[in-house]
Amino acid sequence: MNKFFQRDIISVRDLDKQELETIFDAAEKIIKLDPNERQEIARGKTLGYLFFEPSTRTRLSFQAAIALLGGTSLGIADIASSSAKKGESLADTVKIMSIYSDILVLRHTLDGSSRFAAEVSSKPVINAGSGTEEHPTQAIQDLFTIRKEKKKIDGLKIGIVGDLKYGRTVYSLLYALANYDVEVHLTSPEVLKIRPESIYEIKNSLSFTESTNIEEYLDDLDVLYVTRIQKERFPDEEEYLKVKGSYVIGLDLLQKMKDDAIILHPLPRLDEISTDVDKTKQARYFEQAEYGKYTRAALMGLILNENGF
Amino acid sequence: MNKFFQRDIISVRDLDKQELETIFDAAEKIIKLDPNERQEIARGKTLGYLFFEPSTRTRLSFQAAIALLGGTSLGIADIASSSAKKGESLADTVKIMSIYSDILVLRHTLDGSSRFAAEVSSKPVINAGSGTEEHPTQAIQDLFTIRKEKKKIDGLKIGIVGDLKYGRTVYSLLYALANYDVEVHLTSPEVLKIRPESIYEIKNSLSFTESTNIEEYLDDLDVLYVTRIQKERFPDEEEYLKVKGSYVIGLDLLQKMKDDAIILHPLPRLDEISTDVDKTKQARYFEQAEYGKYTRAALMGLILNENGF
Amino acid sequence: MNKFFQRDIISVRDLDKQELETIFDAAEKIIKLDPNERQEIARGKTLGYLFFEPSTRTRLSFQAAIALLGGTSLGIADIASSSAKKGESLADTVKIMSIYSDILVLRHTLDGSSRFAAEVSSKPVINAGSGTEEHPTQAIQDLFTIRKEKKKIDGLKIGIVGDLKYGRTVYSLLYALANYDVEVHLTSPEVLKIRPESIYEIKNSLSFTESTNIEEYLDDLDVLYVTRIQKERFPDEEEYLKVKGSYVIGLDLLQKMKDDAIILHPLPRLDEISTDVDKTKQARYFEQAEYGKYTRAALMGLILNENGF
Repeated sequence: MNKFFQRDIISVRDLDKQELETIFDAAEKIIKLDPNERQEIARGKTLGYLFFEPSTRTRLSFQAAIALLGGTSLGIADIASSSAKKGESLADTVKIMSIYSDILVLRHTLDGSSRFAAEVSSKPVINAGSGTEEHPTQAIQDLFTIRKEKKKIDGLKIGIVGDLKYGRTVYSLLYALANYDVEVHLTSPEVLKIRPESIYEIKNSLSFTESTNIEEYLDDLDVLYVTRIQKERFPDEEEYLKVKGSYVIGLDLLQKMKDDAIILHPLPRLDEISTDVDKTKQARYFEQAEYGKYTRAALMGLILNENGF
Repeated sequence: MNKFFQRDIISVRDLDKQELETIFDAAEKIIKLDPNERQEIARGKTLGYLFFEPSTRTRLSFQAAIALLGGTSLGIADIASSSAKKGESLADTVKIMSIYSDILVLRHTLDGSSRFAAEVSSKPVINAGSGTEEHPTQAIQDLFTIRKEKKKIDGLKIGIVGDLKYGRTVYSLLYALANYDVEVHLTSPEVLKIRPESIYEIKNSLSFTESTNIEEYLDDLDVLYVTRIQKERFPDEEEYLKVKGSYVIGLDLLQKMKDDAIILHPLPRLDEISTDVDKTKQARYFEQAEYGKYTRAALMGLILNENGF
Repeated sequence: MNKFFQRDIISVRDLDKQELETIFDAAEKIIKLDPNERQEIARGKTLGYLFFEPSTRTRLSFQAAIALLGGTSLGIADIASSSAKKGESLADTVKIMSIYSDILVLRHTLDGSSRFAAEVSSKPVINAGSGTEEHPTQAIQDLFTIRKEKKKIDGLKIGIVGDLKYGRTVYSLLYALANYDVEVHLTSPEVLKIRPESIYEIKNSLSFTESTNIEEYLDDLDVLYVTRIQKERFPDEEEYLKVKGSYVIGLDLLQKMKDDAIILHPLPRLDEISTDVDKTKQARYFEQAEYGKYTRAALMGLILNENGF
């Protein structure tokens, strides 16, 4: 029996290095597999999605992933603004959806919502983003992209730039990276620095620096992970405009990077990466999106099949 | 040829006891069938849904049911608030949808809408709730649950409590029960009593009492069917609050019930059944939801396959 | 290799007569094919839809078509009013969706949007309506209906009536008809006459008359193509009411038509065709809707299969 069979995926913190590598290997297998063979992995299985906070891209990535495996999907794309709620409790909604499907995907604004859902669900639950810190399938996708594109993770120098305070993606990524021997350089405006309490558990296992100047380590990075800076996070607009320009990755900053560095972004991207960069060989954010489909398929394939695939 | 082949399911009043039992037997078969064999029952078939009144649970139940049978679904989840209408007549919308699918599911606020749809549709129509009285697949699900959990329907004492005036579920349930030899005890606040004109046809074939006191027959019931009481039905809030408490099923009321009684609810549930009750052996409303998937699958399997399955 | 393999379908102007006939022949084949064989044509393939302008009927037609071929569909039904946008560029949205699917369907308000999408997409793009002029799959459906119902297209006299100024359907239809030897009679209120600049390229290859009087050529037509006239297009309501009645096709006008003429309409229909007409043998707009499913299936079958099907 594989270790992921019928298992909930709530936090990337629950996964050790070996487990991450098992998922990555499964994703590699999915990529290489003949399309007809892929279709057997979840044939006749149903993915149920419950999005209490809309996220079209994450939802479509899961739907595309289960379709790749021969399964189907159904659910509620935006519960908050739909009629679906009618005052029903999260527990009841999850119980009902777990009756209609073989695997559940949940996105919710509250911390702890996914773990709670997993407790009441009769089917395995995958957290598709919850609260301020957890987005395990994004972190799996991000690390797989690094492994796939750089052929390794250990030993790399990884810059993470943008809004480090509010992006749940960043925290999941850092927790995943803490399993590896990497050097992390965090760059953000002063007001968007990482929340120390949210990385308390890994502050000894992950070596990182903090800076407001993106150029400080730029020429030394193997991976540059860019996230969006939202205007509304700033107390006043002038402060935002001052900061904004310095975090836009364009061809000028790219020239200062190593030739074999790669640039990632969880998407959607606004203007924090110039579209000029898209055509360069460093740009790998669209590959990253594609790997998101394969890593989610791999994870669901492992969860649904006792002996793997 | 099975009697349901290509047949419309508009009202539970159109089904006699033998026909109900045929559906129940088919549902039992679906439950026992190997998942791969199930997938052959509607392979390549398409369910088209038209919801003029949103009902996420009913829609998902149908979608899960056709997916179970290897089919797929498409349609409009909320026509009223969507752009779909553009002033098109119900007849045209139904005709177009019957071109896109092999079987149609319709939910509509108006009485008679489903029968009208069946007349203009080139494909069989299933009523997923219409007007004030009709919800045949809910009634089928409810009776199947009773048969499955109590091993019989005839001879049972069945309490129905809550809003008996406005809930279409209740009327369909009563019409279905009129085919059986049961004793029904209706309990509701005075202002939410059953509409006599809506059960006129069965007043001689169904033996029932009416009361405002839930405890009157409680210790004698085999089945307690609970429905939601909506605050907005009451002329003033004080009236509501006075009534509300007495219809909440909690562990205290449960203790007065027979040990082998079962509690049902069409869901969603607000606070009319305390969550304490969920863990008791009497609570069968989540099983009921699951049987809804199987009975809908059974019905569609019979409709789509000339010689049954 | 068939000429449509992995090809974008952006404008009907890109298709010559022979290519149109190839699609029509493929649609005939789809119609005749055993349902199980159809299911093999796009087995395991995913259609991704991006509707920046909602169009339930066109979307459902594509979804029904891919389901007919054994494929599945996912996407965004109404991007403008959804959370999907988050300021992301069309290019990025298209790139991401092309990762999630094997074929893309795009509906957009802007002229040129589909051609742009095709340039950035890694998968073939089908234009499901863009800007003021382009709706190629509607034109293919319309011409196939004429060929199917009249057994030919060349030599026919075709009337097109209604809003000829704003309906993109009309322009695509005219461009498609310009490949054939037909006589076209355009009828519209003065304020809704065809835009000369939009048919500039075909004004020499298509022979047509313009009139405000629907009865002028009515008795001579083989095909009458009716489109909706929208009240809001008129400067004042009186002008609208004056015009409106004369363009309603009822049994009275029908009597003036040839016995073997056919009436088409892209649907949805409001009151521009009386429902009395539905039962006459001239009414073919519901057949037309059905052929829309088959022609879209044919087109996707050709695009997805190197050696056709």
